[in-house]
Amino acid sequence: MKALIISADEFEDTELLVPYYRLKEAGLEVVVSSMNRGTITGLHGYQVAVDKTLEEVDSGDYGILVLPGGKAPGSVRKQPKALAIARDFFTGNRPVAAICHGPQILASADLLKGRRLTCTASVAEEVKAAGGLYEDRDVVVDGNLVTSRQPADLPAFLRRMMEQVEAGTAVEAIVVIN
Amino acid sequence: MKALIISADEFEDTELLVPYYRLKEAGLEVVVSSMNRGTITGLHGYQVAVDKTLEEVDSGDYGILVLPGGKAPGSVRKQPKALAIARDFFTGNRPVAAICHGPQILASADLLKGRRLTCTASVAEEVKAAGGLYEDRDVVVDGNLVTSRQPADLPAFLRRMMEQVEAGTAVEAIVVIN
Repeated sequence: MKALIISADEFEDTELLVPYYRLKEAGLEVVVSSMNRGTITGLHGYQVAVDKTLEEVDSGDYGILVLPGGKAPGSVRKQPKALAIARDFFTGNRPVAAICHGPQILASADLLKGRRLTCTASVAEEVKAAGGLYEDRDVVVDGNLVTSRQPADLPAFLRRMMEQVEAGTAVEAIVVIN
Repeated sequence: MKALIISADEFEDTELLVPYYRLKEAGLEVVVSSMNRGTITGLHGYQVAVDKTLEEVDSGDYGILVLPGGKAPGSVRKQPKALAIARDFFTGNRPVAAICHGPQILASADLLKGRRLTCTASVAEEVKAAGGLYEDRDVVVDGNLVTSRQPADLPAFLRRMMEQVEAGTAVEAIVVIN
């Protein structure tokens, strides 16, 4: 399975890098996508290479979408291709893991109506206005959607994200056998 | 199982935080120890709470020791208690996972004679001088010792570190049953 991380400059470093290394630990190929080629720089100064621009991404190639937080989602949400990718994942019921400000992208893509989720406190009113059912918990799983609030929630976020990866890998194996 | 991370100011942020969150994901209690109470600050500005001073640590309480890199090992290696803790882990054949400059602490504790390991390139001569058998690979496992070179090696480092945790947890379960 391949994983897609969509982010931009001013990402929250641990919210991108911890899932990035975790997915690689599990043997997944991880592709980082942003508006431009080159590198993106986190709020704490970590630089991450951009593998593909948003325009180069074929969303069907990936088994999971990860949306880290920080200030990056504020610029990603303005990109129609990013919103189209998110919608493709929801349409296909493929897992989407978003943390902190990450759910802003899903709000802009109009994907939160009637969905249970969490996010950083400052984004709570916005996700409710978009029809989301906000809960103040370390992690919320609603179908294909896994959300967390902040870096301190990463252990629970990783645990639930990896459950989705394992379920997706099992489905892939069945498809290969058939 | 409980995990012990020993570090200090100017740690390499991802080399501490990525294993920290990974071990918590697996359900371990993770204790961070340093010279003083309060917080330690990484090279990229992340602050991590110190749970115990080195003097407060009873090394027998922990199933795995993690030694992140950055500049922190340069000060940790001057602490006799830190060296004594590392020696306790080796004496008990309990896992020790060290990355980047982390193996400097093991060199100061005189624990590297005849041991296969890796580390950041600038520390290679020093670990050889301490009797270590240096290899330039993403991860080297020699008995209880797991070592890696740099943040990019974290996926392999985590994979091998978690194998040691799982083996240790299995042993704990057997001890409980008996």
